[in-house]
Formats: sequence, C-alpha cells, structure tokens
Amino acid sequence: MTAQLTYIGRISTPYTKLEDCPNNLQPDGPDCRITLNSDYREGLKGLAAGQSILLLYWFAQANRNPGLQRPGGRPDAPLTGTFALRSPHRPNPIAAAVVPIQALDEEAGTLVVKGLDCLDGTPLLDIKPATRWEAPT
Amino acid sequence: MTAQLTYIGRISTPYTKLEDCPNNLQPDGPDCRITLNSDYREGLKGLAAGQSILLLYWFAQANRNPGLQRPGGRPDAPLTGTFALRSPHRPNPIAAAVVPIQALDEEAGTLVVKGLDCLDGTPLLDIKPATRWEAPT
Repeated sequence: MTAQLTYIGRISTPYTKLEDCPNNLQPDGPDCRITLNSDYREGLKGLAAGQSILLLYWFAQANRNPGLQRPGGRPDAPLTGTFALRSPHRPNPIAAAVVPIQALDEEAGTLVVKGLDCLDGTPLLDIKPATRWEAPT
Repeated sequence: MTAQLTYIGRISTPYTKLEDCPNNLQPDGPDCRITLNSDYREGLKGLAAGQSILLLYWFAQANRNPGLQRPGGRPDAPLTGTFALRSPHRPNPIAAAVVPIQALDEEAGTLVVKGLDCLDGTPLLDIKPATRWEAPT
C-alpha cells in the first residue's frame, strides 16, 4: 500500500556530495535557503522570523532499509533497528528537523534557517509550526 | 515531481469518525496501538518503553490545501497559511507526533502510546527516536 508525495520546494545547502553532509543538525551551521514552488508561497502567511518550525524533507538518495543497520555505517557499531536510529536509510526516507526561522520573505516564498544536514537541492515536503514540540510528560 | 510512500503499519485508536478525533495530542489520552507490518518488525530493535519517539503518519482523507485556510475550519477564524498551522489539510498530509512509548513488543511488532489524534487504521510512515528534539538555541 502506497501514497504519493508532492515536492513543494527545494532546500539550498553548501553540500553537493553526500560525504560532505554533516551527520546531524548544526545550530550554528551555515545558512540554508528554502524556496517554495510558487503554488505554495501563500502558505507561509502567519509564520515569522524567530519562530521554530518543523521541516520535513526527502532523502531521495537513501536506500529503503527496513530492518537492522549499523549506526553511521561504522563496521564496528552494533546492528540496531532502523526505527531506533535517525539514519536516512529507512522505508520512508523523510527527514525531520526543528529549527528557528532566521529570515522569511513571504512574497518570494523563501526562508533561511541554519545548519541543515542535507544535500543542495533536497526536496521539501512540509513546514509546520513547532509549538508543543517536546514530548508530553 | 513526486515520490512514493510505503505504509509500514497501522495505528489503532478509539476514533472511527473524523469528528470524533481530538484536534491535538492528549498526553493522558487513551492507549493507541501501533502494529508494524511483519517486514518492519526488526526495525524496533533498540527502542524501549519510556523513550520518546517521533511518529509520522498519513492523513489519507485530508485535502491537499496548498495555501490559505481557517484554523479548525472555523468561519470566524482569520485566513492563515497552511504552513503556519498543524491542520491535516496540506500538500503532503504527514502528521507528526512526539510521544513516549508506553509499551513495546518487538517480536509482535507492536507499540502502545497515549493520546494520538488520528482515525483508527491510520497508516504509519515512520518512527524515529526523539532525542535532541527541542529547537536548537
């Protein structure tokens, strides 16, 4: 059973090769620019710089590892379940990042955030406000 | 440009009609059971009860609203951008919830969490550990 995703924009980062991508988000990392396709720009209305957002994006080049893998691909690491890892290699390679908005241009459909971990040109799937984002206690 | 999702399991909740679903997660809400398809059970290895996870699931019945909508569908609410809302009606209706694991049975491929907001039978897309989940400061 499957469902279809739509790419709503692209993420520009300094990384053009997989081996250059950092393994994790970097709060003080380089600026990354998100550009929405024109159909989706209106959807930014109500977001503002300083606010935290959840970004969902698509690791198109990942494999679809359903089961066990070694964290970071390190041969000495113990075999661990895909769902216990944030590895890009998973049945649905959707990446999730919570980051503050550094700058926003609603008319141009662009956002700037810091320190994403993905290749230049990565497809964007969604932006959500990241309120109530801690695990409930 | 599109990409394909795979349903990796299903979520059982008490809600069989959309109007019965709560608008938000309920930390003290009813138990919800997640059952992974057999191909994906191994992927749970390394997760444990008590740990917080990010669940991604698919609001198959949502519309694909790309732009402006009224929060909660309330006619008196101001028109707001889809990406400034957690409404299920968005270009890619992927729901995201951070919840603690109440119980886990790796062999059966099942997890119990509390208070999800979705219909009984909702397709599951991904489970990730929810470490480092606050917005970086």
